[in-house]
Amino acid sequence: MEKKEKAVKKEKALKVADPVKASIDKATQEMIARAQDLGIDTIFDRAESMKPCNIGMQGICCKNCSMGPCRLPLPKGGIEGEDTRKGLCGATPNTIAARNFIRMIAGGAAAHSDHGRCVAEVFLSVARKESHDYAIKDADKLLSIAPYFDVATTVEVDGEVLDRDIDEIAVEVAEKALNEWGKAEGELYYLKRAPAPLYEKWKKQGVLPRNIDREIVEIMHRTHIGVDQDYKNLIKQGTRAAIADGWGGSMLATDLQDVLFGTPYPVQSEANLGVMKDDHVNLIVHGHEPVLSEMIVAAAQSPAMVEYAKSKGAKGIQLGGICCTANEILQRHGIPTAATFLQQELAIITGACDAMVVDIQCIMQNLANVAKCFHTKLITTHPIAKMEQDNVMHIEFDEHHAMEDAEKIVKLAIDNFKNRGAEVMIPRQKNTQIAGFGVESIEYHLGGSFRGTYYTLNDNIINGRIRGIAGVVGCNNARTRHNEGHIAVVKELIKNDVIVLTTGCNGIACAMEGLLTPEAASVYCGPGLAEVCETVGIPPVLHLGSCVDNSRILLAATEVVKAGGLGKDISDLPAAGSAPEWMSEKAISIGHYFVTSGVYTVFGYMLPTSGAPVFHDYLSKELEKIYGGMWDLEVDPVKHAQKMIAHIDKKRKALGIDKARERVLMDMASRQALEA
Amino acid sequence: MEKKEKAVKKEKALKVADPVKASIDKATQEMIARAQDLGIDTIFDRAESMKPCNIGMQGICCKNCSMGPCRLPLPKGGIEGEDTRKGLCGATPNTIAARNFIRMIAGGAAAHSDHGRCVAEVFLSVARKESHDYAIKDADKLLSIAPYFDVATTVEVDGEVLDRDIDEIAVEVAEKALNEWGKAEGELYYLKRAPAPLYEKWKKQGVLPRNIDREIVEIMHRTHIGVDQDYKNLIKQGTRAAIADGWGGSMLATDLQDVLFGTPYPVQSEANLGVMKDDHVNLIVHGHEPVLSEMIVAAAQSPAMVEYAKSKGAKGIQLGGICCTANEILQRHGIPTAATFLQQELAIITGACDAMVVDIQCIMQNLANVAKCFHTKLITTHPIAKMEQDNVMHIEFDEHHAMEDAEKIVKLAIDNFKNRGAEVMIPRQKNTQIAGFGVESIEYHLGGSFRGTYYTLNDNIINGRIRGIAGVVGCNNARTRHNEGHIAVVKELIKNDVIVLTTGCNGIACAMEGLLTPEAASVYCGPGLAEVCETVGIPPVLHLGSCVDNSRILLAATEVVKAGGLGKDISDLPAAGSAPEWMSEKAISIGHYFVTSGVYTVFGYMLPTSGAPVFHDYLSKELEKIYGGMWDLEVDPVKHAQKMIAHIDKKRKALGIDKARERVLMDMASRQALEA
Repeated sequence: MEKKEKAVKKEKALKVADPVKASIDKATQEMIARAQDLGIDTIFDRAESMKPCNIGMQGICCKNCSMGPCRLPLPKGGIEGEDTRKGLCGATPNTIAARNFIRMIAGGAAAHSDHGRCVAEVFLSVARKESHDYAIKDADKLLSIAPYFDVATTVEVDGEVLDRDIDEIAVEVAEKALNEWGKAEGELYYLKRAPAPLYEKWKKQGVLPRNIDREIVEIMHRTHIGVDQDYKNLIKQGTRAAIADGWGGSMLATDLQDVLFGTPYPVQSEANLGVMKDDHVNLIVHGHEPVLSEMIVAAAQSPAMVEYAKSKGAKGIQLGGICCTANEILQRHGIPTAATFLQQELAIITGACDAMVVDIQCIMQNLANVAKCFHTKLITTHPIAKMEQDNVMHIEFDEHHAMEDAEKIVKLAIDNFKNRGAEVMIPRQKNTQIAGFGVESIEYHLGGSFRGTYYTLNDNIINGRIRGIAGVVGCNNARTRHNEGHIAVVKELIKNDVIVLTTGCNGIACAMEGLLTPEAASVYCGPGLAEVCETVGIPPVLHLGSCVDNSRILLAATEVVKAGGLGKDISDLPAAGSAPEWMSEKAISIGHYFVTSGVYTVFGYMLPTSGAPVFHDYLSKELEKIYGGMWDLEVDPVKHAQKMIAHIDKKRKALGIDKARERVLMDMASRQALEA
Repeated sequence: MEKKEKAVKKEKALKVADPVKASIDKATQEMIARAQDLGIDTIFDRAESMKPCNIGMQGICCKNCSMGPCRLPLPKGGIEGEDTRKGLCGATPNTIAARNFIRMIAGGAAAHSDHGRCVAEVFLSVARKESHDYAIKDADKLLSIAPYFDVATTVEVDGEVLDRDIDEIAVEVAEKALNEWGKAEGELYYLKRAPAPLYEKWKKQGVLPRNIDREIVEIMHRTHIGVDQDYKNLIKQGTRAAIADGWGGSMLATDLQDVLFGTPYPVQSEANLGVMKDDHVNLIVHGHEPVLSEMIVAAAQSPAMVEYAKSKGAKGIQLGGICCTANEILQRHGIPTAATFLQQELAIITGACDAMVVDIQCIMQNLANVAKCFHTKLITTHPIAKMEQDNVMHIEFDEHHAMEDAEKIVKLAIDNFKNRGAEVMIPRQKNTQIAGFGVESIEYHLGGSFRGTYYTLNDNIINGRIRGIAGVVGCNNARTRHNEGHIAVVKELIKNDVIVLTTGCNGIACAMEGLLTPEAASVYCGPGLAEVCETVGIPPVLHLGSCVDNSRILLAATEVVKAGGLGKDISDLPAAGSAPEWMSEKAISIGHYFVTSGVYTVFGYMLPTSGAPVFHDYLSKELEKIYGGMWDLEVDPVKHAQKMIAHIDKKRKALGIDKARERVLMDMASRQALEA
């Protein structure tokens, strides 16, 4: 009794969020309010209660040795004259901010690449016939990537060219792919997939990654006390590791997942918490690696399991995804998306989540506390990602008995259906989405099966119907209003005829808002983009998958370059990148590989570099001279999009296609402005 | 004029250190005062001016995503009831402190291992005859390590067993060694060098490192937002990476350096700033990798260079080392040690440093500011470690033209001799030291050439003359009085008949204090240890080299186990470890591989875990149950040593040899206590 009172007192001391200020999404608002009614704190409340450290945010807190943490706040009124701030060892704000920044790249690149390695290991195990629950689903994809690894797909026998045995190819590709993480000599195979001028820039700068792990490890070494103390040199290593992510670990993850689980093609589905069902077993999969969730999809759809669910009083099994696990099973199976990163606690707060299965990345530890208030089984599955709290189950997933593990989990969810409390409250909001785009499907949809290239896309960019291409990606962040930045940026872009490629939580946000439907074109797009979308029958926002699938954006951009007419390098394209609500270290790694692949990239929430103005400027101005891409920061989402559009227009002008666009179209606002 | 006044004003605003409170060393005190007279700030002053962040120090500041930094300070008066502190994502203090702790291991292991990789690359290049300035100096060492890599040293030809060509062995060992950083399958070769029970403990725990880089990368992944949120699981990965450091990267660095540059044997030299000479060209090498400094030693000792120095008015060239570069060229060439980590600025403040050449790790960025006030040429040499300031020269060192680079640097120093200002002030303090001990020389000195094993050492431990073995190692830290902890701990240990193995800045501190001479035995040691040292002619403190050479301590301990009579595992030995003035992430990695190799390890300055009591306790109590070693913290140096001695006595008791010691000797104080 006394204890309970104390708990209540503590709960009251916590500030609570204003649901409407916390999210633009009605379902989210409802669930935040419900959590508050139930006395359960969510991340939205915690963001109200705890202020971030102002010095840390500026990137100028160094805790890389135990003489610190040294903090070098900017003097009020800014720097006058020489900047004499320094840590105990003499580290300048530039050194400290650059160290912190590239350690973020190390964290992000490690996350993506380690994910890729796990897939590569499963693939090797499948290729060697050591795992029997998976198979090579897309042999064409395997054949298409084999040449990059110098693996022959044909063999000459007595002067005749024959197809090589696919299993043989698979083993060889798998071994070579897995070796990309640690080979002692050479450079990453996939670097040569980049446009030749880009590869040459990297080579000239000395940032060609030697292998994936080494570049991450070298970041950790260089940022150790007393090693690299030149921000330009530090960021160079950050570049090397980021390239090893985008053109290495992430790209390998995407490719090998496509080989194993199938290359995505457009599928229809739904998004938001409203996909959960009152009368179904709701099983939510959350995290990033599809290795487990692929099996769960198969298990949950098996007649035996559906029958078992029915025997327990449910009408069936409703799977739903959160974060990039959602994107993976959406793009390959059309499984609906239940929630973005910030909504993960809310999925449990519905009271209808019978089990939540998590693997790696972006899992909130507070899920365990929330699950404790409901019947929800919270299940960790990955050896590298467990939880401290004792109400969390750990069922270790192993590719060698994958289906067995998956069935165990699905059964657990079904068995838990009967334990639901009376107070189930599933928000009604959900929206239709078409997802599952990729390099191959864009080629098909925009290039046509006859031409089979990106030329039609290029043509529409050249003639100005499509003003340019934007990649809008990334997380949610509890320090910004949930989904507001995502949606405002994307709407402003498509209104101005910029086609959007999306991944990650931006993709989920767009789905929740209904932007991933062909019908959205006529509602939200400028006339040029609307015309293209309506002709071809695609949404103006193309969902390309999960965070590792940002590699699809790199390759799509490369295809555009190859198709001709828009310059010779990614940096020549009328294209820009954006992460309106970034939060994780992965976003910094992604941002940096976009920038150093030639893309102007705008982030919508602070960059942890503001306390080191010289380094900050270097990222935003000097990098452009080297790679043609640059970092930018703009928190106002409309200005954010406008900056991207201005960049696109600058590139159109450089290509000499600005005139074409002027002739072809003006949007309503412009016409009205002219008439006024 | 105005600008100058402003600068003076800023200088005045800085607090200055009290030289006597800052260091126990007279030379250091003198130089701090001199710097203050000249208006130049040193790290001692900066430590007075800037407070470390109290929350960061406790390990409970998480800046691993941009929703933070989240800070979870301990409530005043401690935790009452349940600890409800959590970050935005719900991360507990345990999660946050464990994340930070193992990221420190990642930084430290990366530093050591990357150093080792550089040596392995040079070795491969030498083995392949691509570098001609180096050669294999110690073929015996090569032959002794080859079997660990499954490299045959003999070959059977027509039934006759012949020695294999040494060059062939070298290439094979080099390739296999280099592959340890990134091999896709298997586990590290050297793990099997550990006592079998220790290997089995690691295996059971699942912490056998797969390769070196991967374990570091996996730390970065696991500590990314939303991955591992169980401190026990997090520290398990920290263990894996730390073992990959101690029994991997560091051990490979030591072995391959011995092969290339010669296995150290005891040499006599001197230590402290007084080794610099008024009338000589003073060239200081500072950092950690011997790859460059080996060449500089050769170049500086070449008759042509000495002649050149004389032609410029100097009487010769005085080389001196700082940090582990000092230890490397000391143990192999007897080059005197100029300074510890904290004295590096002071070497320039003498006004007599004509050039300071730095490579990697523990280089203060403020060296550049100090060098600006004198004629000193500050030269960075490593591609991964540059400096922002424009008075720093970068001469990139490349093993393929090693001697050419080294000569260029030595010549630069000589040419700069004439530019010295009038105000040269070299402190007179220096002390004699005997250094260059190692696994092989301990065997020789304590085992004798006849027996050639560690049995004699064991015998003296068993009979109680030597009470136990301590490894006392690690950095200086500007938050503690320079060298005070080092010296007090070591003196207390040897007074109590504990023989000390030292490396790193502890080794330098002991040298400065005169503890590295055989004569120290009669002055500072208890009667048992004194007797052994005097009989054999060794110092009571054996200097085993640089920080990567802590691997020598692991192997020496393993030899003691093998020699018999003292248990079956390192954790059975009457032994303990200590880092009285630790500062760097490397120290945390070293500490952790000692702990998880079975060694009770005490640190003398705060551990960044105090804000997370549960995790802190886990490190200090629970780990002992698993590995037999544990972390401890004791800031009072005498208590610190007494804790180590108590542990040693506990182990003696467990071995049943406590009685032996009681019979054999009592120190004066004990006798007096009895008599009183």
